[in-house]
Amino acid sequence: MLVGGKQYLSVWMEGRKVCMVDQTLLPFQFQIFESGSYLTTCEAIRKMVVRGAGALGAAAGYALAQAALEAPIHNYSDFLLQARKEIESTRPTARNLFFAVERVYNASLSSREHAVEEACRIADEDATASEQIGVLGKTLIKNGSRIATHCNAGWLAFVDHGTALSPVYHGFREGKSIFVYVDETRPRGQGARLTAWELHNAGIPHAIIPDNATPWYMSRGMIDLMIVGADRIAINGDVANKIGTLGKAIAAQRYHLPAWFNVGATFKL
Amino acid sequence: MLVGGKQYLSVWMEGRKVCMVDQTLLPFQFQIFESGSYLTTCEAIRKMVVRGAGALGAAAGYALAQAALEAPIHNYSDFLLQARKEIESTRPTARNLFFAVERVYNASLSSREHAVEEACRIADEDATASEQIGVLGKTLIKNGSRIATHCNAGWLAFVDHGTALSPVYHGFREGKSIFVYVDETRPRGQGARLTAWELHNAGIPHAIIPDNATPWYMSRGMIDLMIVGADRIAINGDVANKIGTLGKAIAAQRYHLPAWFNVGATFKL
Repeated sequence: MLVGGKQYLSVWMEGRKVCMVDQTLLPFQFQIFESGSYLTTCEAIRKMVVRGAGALGAAAGYALAQAALEAPIHNYSDFLLQARKEIESTRPTARNLFFAVERVYNASLSSREHAVEEACRIADEDATASEQIGVLGKTLIKNGSRIATHCNAGWLAFVDHGTALSPVYHGFREGKSIFVYVDETRPRGQGARLTAWELHNAGIPHAIIPDNATPWYMSRGMIDLMIVGADRIAINGDVANKIGTLGKAIAAQRYHLPAWFNVGATFKL
Repeated sequence: MLVGGKQYLSVWMEGRKVCMVDQTLLPFQFQIFESGSYLTTCEAIRKMVVRGAGALGAAAGYALAQAALEAPIHNYSDFLLQARKEIESTRPTARNLFFAVERVYNASLSSREHAVEEACRIADEDATASEQIGVLGKTLIKNGSRIATHCNAGWLAFVDHGTALSPVYHGFREGKSIFVYVDETRPRGQGARLTAWELHNAGIPHAIIPDNATPWYMSRGMIDLMIVGADRIAINGDVANKIGTLGKAIAAQRYHLPAWFNVGATFKL
């Protein structure tokens, strides 16, 4: 009766299952993790099988849709409320997770079908928004650009396309020559493990560098712009993002580099 | 007939042997590497068994003293010249190594004994200078100071005391309360592996943090000063040091922290 939405790249729903690229195994192993219950999806979020702002939002929405499918009729609303709390406890810093859970929860109040539809809609919106970031953002990338990134804000971190990497992908597909300096992103290595893996698969020339090295490359005029994702952007332009973003932003400012956070928002330092 | 100099902490000479703490094994294993020939000492320098500006200078001086002891009488000067070139090829970026080799080479022209004496004198001078850095530098450290470091410029990196850490040791011994933020220092981890090990052994409270995190701690007012070593300081104040120093310096400037390079020189940003 209920089927999932589109099969996206990083995370999607098939019937009652939530499927996701297991990001803990990359870059050494590519494996799809299939979760048959909302509690298993919660565990996957906790263990960073899935990570990244948009991907977490989609996964959390799917998890609550799973819960709606699992909930017994006689105890439907209590079950959903409990599931919502459980999902919200998995990653207290992920804002996307909270608003996805809220939307799917509200939809679940009318029916299970609406819960699943809403979860799929959240994923669709994330994919569309990420694609639009690429369409708009690619105009900022000149032919021959040398671009620095931090952490992973590519398609693994969203439902598709990514945010920081979306303009890179779109520009590259248009034939622009691009080189990406990928910092390791200690302590968890999302740059070295995930961004480099994405770029390798896309055939985009890149190098992994220690987090320490980015300011030096900037000082030598070897980086034209830096693009990073952002967990959140406040209305005054303040940005919340992964540890290390601040140091890179200060260095970019020092060397007068253009820097954009979540290109759609185009905040300049 | 020939005995070495004093037994220092990181590197010293005993008869014809050069002894050094094997820094490649730390922090998991403490082991003294004993080199019986100048070529073995060269290999130890290449493999970073010994590293750090002052320790490299001492090791290189000792290596050439070893060569003077090994050189056959009929071929003494050719052997020494060849040994000098060999030692100089081990670490082309280490200035201390070059001036130590030059001094010991000049001494070796008069006799083997002079070569050994000169090598020991270089180690003595390094230990004395490092101690003086501590004596002068400790006045810069207030009680309760929270200090950031980068890489390792402690006693492992010099013949004794260290440069950046010498004021920390001297201040701590005076009873000052001190907390040290030790950055990992990717890609080789000298902070996480060596500086943290030194501080642990000295009983000085500290935490290892990712290189990425230092600017954030500065922005929160959690770091009072940053002390780093310097491979070289030019007369105009320019500093050459390990990758990552630039980014930390820019962040320290942004947050108006005092920053000293090789405290003896007291360059402020």
